[in-house]
Amino acid sequence: MHHSIHKLFNPASVAVIGASEVPGKAAERRTRSLIEGGYQGKIFPINPKRDTIFNRKAYQSILDVDEQVDLVMIVVAPRFVQQAVAESLRKGVRGIIIITAGMGETGDEGKRIEKEIQQMVEESDARLLGPNCSGMFSASARVNFLGVPPIQKGPLSILAQSGNIIDTLTYYARSRNLGFSKIVSAGNAVGVKFHEYIEYLNDDPDTGVIMLYLESISEGRQFITAARETIKRKPIIALKVGRSGAGARAAGSHTGAMAVDDVILDAAFKQAGIIRVFNVDELFDLAMVFSQCPLPKGNRAAILSEGGGDNSVAADNAEKWGVEVPILSEITRQKLRPYLLEGMPACNPIDYGGTAEENPDMIARCCDICMQDDQVDALYVTGFFGGFKDIIAPHVGELEERAARKLVDLVRTHQKPLMVHTSFARAPYRSLEILKTGGVPVFESSDRTAQSIACLMKYVENQRKIKSMTVSQDGGEMPPGVKAILQKAKDEGRKNLLETECRGILMEYAVPLPEAGFATHQNDAVAIADRLGYPVAMKVVSPDIVHKSDVGCVKLALQDSDAVQGAFYEIMENAGKVTGSSRVPGVLISPMARKGQECIIGMTRDPVFGPVIMFGLGGIFVEVLRDVAFRLAPLSNIDIDEMIQEIKGFPILIGIRGEKPKDIPAIQDVLERLSRLVIETPEIKEVDLNPVMVHENGVSIVDSRIILD
Amino acid sequence: MHHSIHKLFNPASVAVIGASEVPGKAAERRTRSLIEGGYQGKIFPINPKRDTIFNRKAYQSILDVDEQVDLVMIVVAPRFVQQAVAESLRKGVRGIIIITAGMGETGDEGKRIEKEIQQMVEESDARLLGPNCSGMFSASARVNFLGVPPIQKGPLSILAQSGNIIDTLTYYARSRNLGFSKIVSAGNAVGVKFHEYIEYLNDDPDTGVIMLYLESISEGRQFITAARETIKRKPIIALKVGRSGAGARAAGSHTGAMAVDDVILDAAFKQAGIIRVFNVDELFDLAMVFSQCPLPKGNRAAILSEGGGDNSVAADNAEKWGVEVPILSEITRQKLRPYLLEGMPACNPIDYGGTAEENPDMIARCCDICMQDDQVDALYVTGFFGGFKDIIAPHVGELEERAARKLVDLVRTHQKPLMVHTSFARAPYRSLEILKTGGVPVFESSDRTAQSIACLMKYVENQRKIKSMTVSQDGGEMPPGVKAILQKAKDEGRKNLLETECRGILMEYAVPLPEAGFATHQNDAVAIADRLGYPVAMKVVSPDIVHKSDVGCVKLALQDSDAVQGAFYEIMENAGKVTGSSRVPGVLISPMARKGQECIIGMTRDPVFGPVIMFGLGGIFVEVLRDVAFRLAPLSNIDIDEMIQEIKGFPILIGIRGEKPKDIPAIQDVLERLSRLVIETPEIKEVDLNPVMVHENGVSIVDSRIILD
Repeated sequence: MHHSIHKLFNPASVAVIGASEVPGKAAERRTRSLIEGGYQGKIFPINPKRDTIFNRKAYQSILDVDEQVDLVMIVVAPRFVQQAVAESLRKGVRGIIIITAGMGETGDEGKRIEKEIQQMVEESDARLLGPNCSGMFSASARVNFLGVPPIQKGPLSILAQSGNIIDTLTYYARSRNLGFSKIVSAGNAVGVKFHEYIEYLNDDPDTGVIMLYLESISEGRQFITAARETIKRKPIIALKVGRSGAGARAAGSHTGAMAVDDVILDAAFKQAGIIRVFNVDELFDLAMVFSQCPLPKGNRAAILSEGGGDNSVAADNAEKWGVEVPILSEITRQKLRPYLLEGMPACNPIDYGGTAEENPDMIARCCDICMQDDQVDALYVTGFFGGFKDIIAPHVGELEERAARKLVDLVRTHQKPLMVHTSFARAPYRSLEILKTGGVPVFESSDRTAQSIACLMKYVENQRKIKSMTVSQDGGEMPPGVKAILQKAKDEGRKNLLETECRGILMEYAVPLPEAGFATHQNDAVAIADRLGYPVAMKVVSPDIVHKSDVGCVKLALQDSDAVQGAFYEIMENAGKVTGSSRVPGVLISPMARKGQECIIGMTRDPVFGPVIMFGLGGIFVEVLRDVAFRLAPLSNIDIDEMIQEIKGFPILIGIRGEKPKDIPAIQDVLERLSRLVIETPEIKEVDLNPVMVHENGVSIVDSRIILD
Repeated sequence: MHHSIHKLFNPASVAVIGASEVPGKAAERRTRSLIEGGYQGKIFPINPKRDTIFNRKAYQSILDVDEQVDLVMIVVAPRFVQQAVAESLRKGVRGIIIITAGMGETGDEGKRIEKEIQQMVEESDARLLGPNCSGMFSASARVNFLGVPPIQKGPLSILAQSGNIIDTLTYYARSRNLGFSKIVSAGNAVGVKFHEYIEYLNDDPDTGVIMLYLESISEGRQFITAARETIKRKPIIALKVGRSGAGARAAGSHTGAMAVDDVILDAAFKQAGIIRVFNVDELFDLAMVFSQCPLPKGNRAAILSEGGGDNSVAADNAEKWGVEVPILSEITRQKLRPYLLEGMPACNPIDYGGTAEENPDMIARCCDICMQDDQVDALYVTGFFGGFKDIIAPHVGELEERAARKLVDLVRTHQKPLMVHTSFARAPYRSLEILKTGGVPVFESSDRTAQSIACLMKYVENQRKIKSMTVSQDGGEMPPGVKAILQKAKDEGRKNLLETECRGILMEYAVPLPEAGFATHQNDAVAIADRLGYPVAMKVVSPDIVHKSDVGCVKLALQDSDAVQGAFYEIMENAGKVTGSSRVPGVLISPMARKGQECIIGMTRDPVFGPVIMFGLGGIFVEVLRDVAFRLAPLSNIDIDEMIQEIKGFPILIGIRGEKPKDIPAIQDVLERLSRLVIETPEIKEVDLNPVMVHENGVSIVDSRIILD
């Protein structure tokens, strides 16, 4: 699979169908950027109305080219696209880029054409990019098919569903001297899928950081699997739009994409270790940081400044982003003291008063001391660095340059990230240039600085987490018992399984269920109740009755055999009213569940991400506070831990007001078994275990509901 | 009061004690900035070691100056400050600025000196700024005592507890051509208090926007009152640091300030209509926006771009900040359609496809149409504006300039704010300059753009809210009944009031309490219970017993007279064990409260803000979720509404799962009465009504606790 994409990024020759020399036209800009970018292979312009284009012979049709064509870019009106693709395939191209817009994103007719193109391409060896995309860049082959000014080679790679976002990112990179390995404008992504790109970029030795801009996600599970694998080697930073109604509207009109439930997306990103951002400048800044900085070992930072104000702002931002700002060790504090104003505590944040302004070397010295401290994983310098020469006197500029060089050296020596926030970040000062080109990011925003440090830390944590993950349930065979139950329901045309059937399926996965018995006769009911012990609960079991309590078909807390007998009659009578006695129902008898903390555990199939497992406390926690956690199945051990711990009601499970802790391992066990169940049984569309009473020892699954697809 | 500060800002002559000509020294920089700023009054350098300074005669002492000195700046070592102040006062100055650091912020000795200075100054007509401050700027008198490059005159004013933050803000303003009216570096704020500055700036006709940077707050109530009054005329934007532990540490070491509970601070800011920010660039950007843009009428924005990607990001940001992005009316959509690419929906966000890139006039036309729509309160243009000439061709630059002029005109004509987010925001392009100087802010960050629009909208809402507020309880006389109860407790040396006393006080304010009776004999207890009706609850009333249930002195759900009798004995016996029978207790008997939603209502006195009222649902909502709302007393009608509605559990009060709504007016009533109570009775330190059972009709205050100061 990979080498087919590889060809797309490394063509020995390219053709442009719809080539043009008219300045500003899509084909003209892209051909020009290809030539200006120094592409070394042959270029064949295809345009029946011209003899030459860009001083190259123009052809009537791609079929007229008598040499091999590896890659074709198609920039013709929508109605000519199909023919262009067909001819290109006949010519034997290995890569096709369709720039043309007005396809699938405009409606059904466009979608139909896309489908036909997709089929043609899938039957060939070629891979397709677009349509409705803005092109591609590949440093390895010096292909700049984006129509933007020359792009430097470097460690960043982009996969984006918007050409404008790519333009912005390449513009940022140009103005900050950063470069790219691969850039893909995916457009409507009819051909190569996102996860294939990610797999390819994972293997691309030139790619150090992957940036995603997404308006939609398809093949969600493969996407997440590919991302999770990639995280082990390089970070992925993703901007996914469409959180808001209006945002989804805008994204939808743009690529005709389907909305994704943002809560589930968040969970999926978390599981895959993808770092999510919400703005383009954020996306760029973080990619820059990852491409330049060493990774921290932990999540503790030292903050240093010549001003208490900047220190306070920085510390607040650090905490907001989850960076610890610990009080430094006595040894470090003693080492720092000589550099600080008298009376200034050296605890962290570190305030070297106003003396650094005249003598910036002090900043480097203080940073050196902090770098030596094992309890400091990253450094955050805030204030006026670079601008001391404006504030104090011109001669300080040279001292700042010297300090900047020292800071760069410190990062290399100690391999700890250091970032500088300064009010003068935009000024074209040499000291700041030394930092920026030396692997010390310089920011104008204190918040962004803290976020950058936090994201480096988060990535390290994610890597560690993903490397240690065990996903125990790899999707084996569906147990025969489950198969039989599903077959029976199918034969009878039922989507809602009976509770006895739900229990049957859950038992196959050893999900712990309360004992119960099924009775179609009052004597059996009493015998079962006697055996189980009182009090008992009784519920109707009937394919015709879904909302059992609403029609008087659930009886609770029955204390003796008389009560059971009475309840049996009542349930049967009420059931009869609903079903018209066409199918004779039975009754499920089980002991009343012990008191415990009400929880719910469930599964739904997301159209994009497949089976998603939910966990939460019951009642108002779900209904009012929406305090639930989601994860894609299969769940790893870490996913299970995280989803239990991330709900706001978690303290209730570990015990509040002197209550004993609840049996969290028992919850984990149910989640793990449910995960395996839903992976092995794709026919199940929904599972709802609600309520699950969690006790000090064990859980009671009071009610279970399964719906088939 | 005001004219005394006025003199501080408008001195006819100034002296500098500790004057210097050594470049970079604090006094040198400030004297230089004063002269370079074009100050027109006389300047008297005081330095016993020099004959002249800055070509002016230098004096041994301020007392040697034979002319009137209005303002003195003191920049001497800490041990000389007191003498300098004393001499200045003898000289009859009206304003004193102490730059010297190393005072109250370093410890007790510094605090002692500050106190003495404070006393001296308070006995005079002079007002004091600092110590540990970086100076002051006043456009009206052309005083730049900050030691920074010349500051333009303009509508911004700053009150800050950090000189560095002022340096940053004035640097930003300089590079963006904005100006100031007044700038105050408050330092340790020993003299003039924050609220006095705010009152002064409220009256200052040259101040349009007030920016605050705070590390601490003192005189919290006056501060909030002054701010609330000011909001009616001009916005206040505040950066308060110290949210995090490390941030508070940094702020504390900086000005020796006391930490403020951030949750209470947030509530106070909300009540006063102060817009809170967390970063210096945010503070500046918002102040800039307020100084340049017309105020919107409502909270609906139209978003426009040539790119779907930017539109999606913008829409997501808008929603995050609470800006509505409504689908536009059919009329507006019809008017827009001719300007859009075929198939592009005109609903909002509006995507004019790629055509605007070559013809930016289209942007102005689309904006014009949106401006005409009554349902659009603000406009948000996102994309590449200004950079089309780079993307397409140089000639487009002129078209962009023309479009920019049109946009500026549109804002003037329609008086609706318009902001531009563009990837090219930092580029020095003429079209962008036209926008920036014409009242159309240009941002590099989409998020900041959305925030800016949102804050304009929020300010209008805050103004409306504060103008319509009624604070019904202005703090009258304490009722004699309350006085008597307090006196008795004081006489007996008790801080914890008995529940009977709590009830007495609450009844004086007509807080609805369940009926109850007090008995010291079993027969009385039974008689009371018979009268009230069963079941009843019984609790001990004793000054020696605080945690009643822990020692077996609360009995619930007593069903008949026998039970009451038994409970009485038991309570008395248990109480006897605790108190040793020294003081004979009694028992309070009341009917068992009806079921309802458990709430808590309370008051604590904050050291900075005084009485703070709390409301929340009980149980896990308080203990696990910390889902409570705070407001400073006295509560306005709007405060009461907001604090009930802002808790996450609010849906429970209006009724979930088919339950009837709870009696919210009854809660409002209790809050309003409690507010009056705590205002009129400063002796009360804490009130705790917990639980308060809220029914469909009325509330039951099951338990009440009052602690005196």
